Amino acid sequence: MGELIFAIGMGAVGVSAVTGVLEAGRKPIDLFGVVLVALTSALGGGTMRDLLLERPVFWVADQSYLVAAIAAGVATFVLVRLVRLPANLFLAPDALGLALFTIIGTQTAMTYGAPWFVASFLGVVTGVFGGVLRDILCNEVPLVFSGELYATASWAGAMLFIGLVRAGVAGTSAALIAAAAIFLTRLAAIHWRLTLPSFSAKA
Amino acid sequence: MGELIFAIGMGAVGVSAVTGVLEAGRKPIDLFGVVLVALTSALGGGTMRDLLLERPVFWVADQSYLVAAIAAGVATFVLVRLVRLPANLFLAPDALGLALFTIIGTQTAMTYGAPWFVASFLGVVTGVFGGVLRDILCNEVPLVFSGELYATASWAGAMLFIGLVRAGVAGTSAALIAAAAIFLTRLAAIHWRLTLPSFSAKA
Amino acid sequence: MGELIFAIGMGAVGVSAVTGVLEAGRKPIDLFGVVLVALTSALGGGTMRDLLLERPVFWVADQSYLVAAIAAGVATFVLVRLVRLPANLFLAPDALGLALFTIIGTQTAMTYGAPWFVASFLGVVTGVFGGVLRDILCNEVPLVFSGELYATASWAGAMLFIGLVRAGVAGTSAALIAAAAIFLTRLAAIHWRLTLPSFSAKA
Repeated sequence: MGELIFAIGMGAVGVSAVTGVLEAGRKPIDLFGVVLVALTSALGGGTMRDLLLERPVFWVADQSYLVAAIAAGVATFVLVRLVRLPANLFLAPDALGLALFTIIGTQTAMTYGAPWFVASFLGVVTGVFGGVLRDILCNEVPLVFSGELYATASWAGAMLFIGLVRAGVAGTSAALIAAAAIFLTRLAAIHWRLTLPSFSAKA
Repeated sequence: MGELIFAIGMGAVGVSAVTGVLEAGRKPIDLFGVVLVALTSALGGGTMRDLLLERPVFWVADQSYLVAAIAAGVATFVLVRLVRLPANLFLAPDALGLALFTIIGTQTAMTYGAPWFVASFLGVVTGVFGGVLRDILCNEVPLVFSGELYATASWAGAMLFIGLVRAGVAGTSAALIAAAAIFLTRLAAIHWRLTLPSFSAKA
Repeated sequence: MGELIFAIGMGAVGVSAVTGVLEAGRKPIDLFGVVLVALTSALGGGTMRDLLLERPVFWVADQSYLVAAIAAGVATFVLVRLVRLPANLFLAPDALGLALFTIIGTQTAMTYGAPWFVASFLGVVTGVFGGVLRDILCNEVPLVFSGELYATASWAGAMLFIGLVRAGVAGTSAALIAAAAIFLTRLAAIHWRLTLPSFSAKA
């Protein structure tokens, strides 16, 4: 179980590093800058979760996360200079990363004694904050705040996970169900362009 | 006294969430994104103070702050879609939030043993950092850095509070006087357009 | 040795505050806002390092750093309004600050038990993160991500420092050699316009 979580976390870190590289690629940023944006994208959400929970920051304690993020970032950097990649190639992996990070984050927060409603938001923080930091570094309004359901899917999945655990479902089953729900909701939202009402003040 | 501080903090959190919604409303951000910007605006200053002081983050320990911020954010989101609100409706509550957050932050920093000059800046961080994060998320130069006295009023009030306490004034009285000073300075600055000299390098 | 590190850190803080003022000067930011940007520039990197390492934040524990940053910031603010400064006046001090912060950050991370590869990146964080925050506050794509070698020089120097220490070189000598390498690499990069390959995706 511990090894499974480690493998899942590693996969999510790699995928998020890839999205960081792709985003940074639209800006005049050099190779090392791209690596730093990729690291922020991959490690930012979990870092913020760990700071808020006052627990050791996961990638400072175990450097394999840092190595994985850099390897994924550099590989992507090289790949996109060689090959024309379809623009939607990473939508499914990104949705998977969102699902995995959210559930890991929610689970970790509950383990550290956070109240359940706070835990659901720490799941969202883990899932989306890396992407928010990536967009801030690239001087963009964060993408997760608009367009097809993203942060919303993350939060709904975190709440589902908490509800399942409270209803007595075993942790691994609850995690799989909730992660699948986030993953499929995100893909469905992209496919059918599902959005929340956008803000429009009377002026 | 503890209950009074809790009530004041809750009020300041609610007011700051409202300003987050109003700011986010000028950007293409969906409902959940608006809620996240409101949360950042309401909780960001106190979060940074708690991280810097190595104390438990206030809204992770007690989820009523999170609930209050979300409730205020969603209510504002609905309200501004129904009613045309006067643009200056929230200037006074925002000034009140600035005053309350600053004094709570300075007081907390002193309680945790920060040197007095550091404590005054942690008061400013508590008072203005939520607004700074709100503006960064919305991809704007932070408003608190320009225009009528804002961060300046916060810092002057924090120093006044520290001076009063050192002069032997009781904590509650010192807090009320300093908070009133910040509140009135901010309102006076808006009314008479009081500003600090702006930077203008010889080029 | 402790006093030397303190003096070096103080110098790096002052220099970084100056760069913060110069950057903020291109924006409509008032005097106190300029001071806050200068503080962020000067203290941001070390703050992030300390948060990631779960150690007390250096400027909260000892307020002389805060005082030094503010004094340097205000002095620069006054100076640039009086005198036409050559644009490249601060390139050498800035390179010195980068070198000093990087080595102090790497050293601190190793002292606190971070794995060596993580320690090299915490050195980079200490060296460049203040500048990144400064640019984010001023709503710019961070300068350290592009142009002549900057973050790259910082990381290479951190790795050199770790390698020298592991090879048995005394700490002070290793620090001097690695800091000199960063400083000279940065100056050489500016002089000969040395850059890393920039990202350019096949589209």
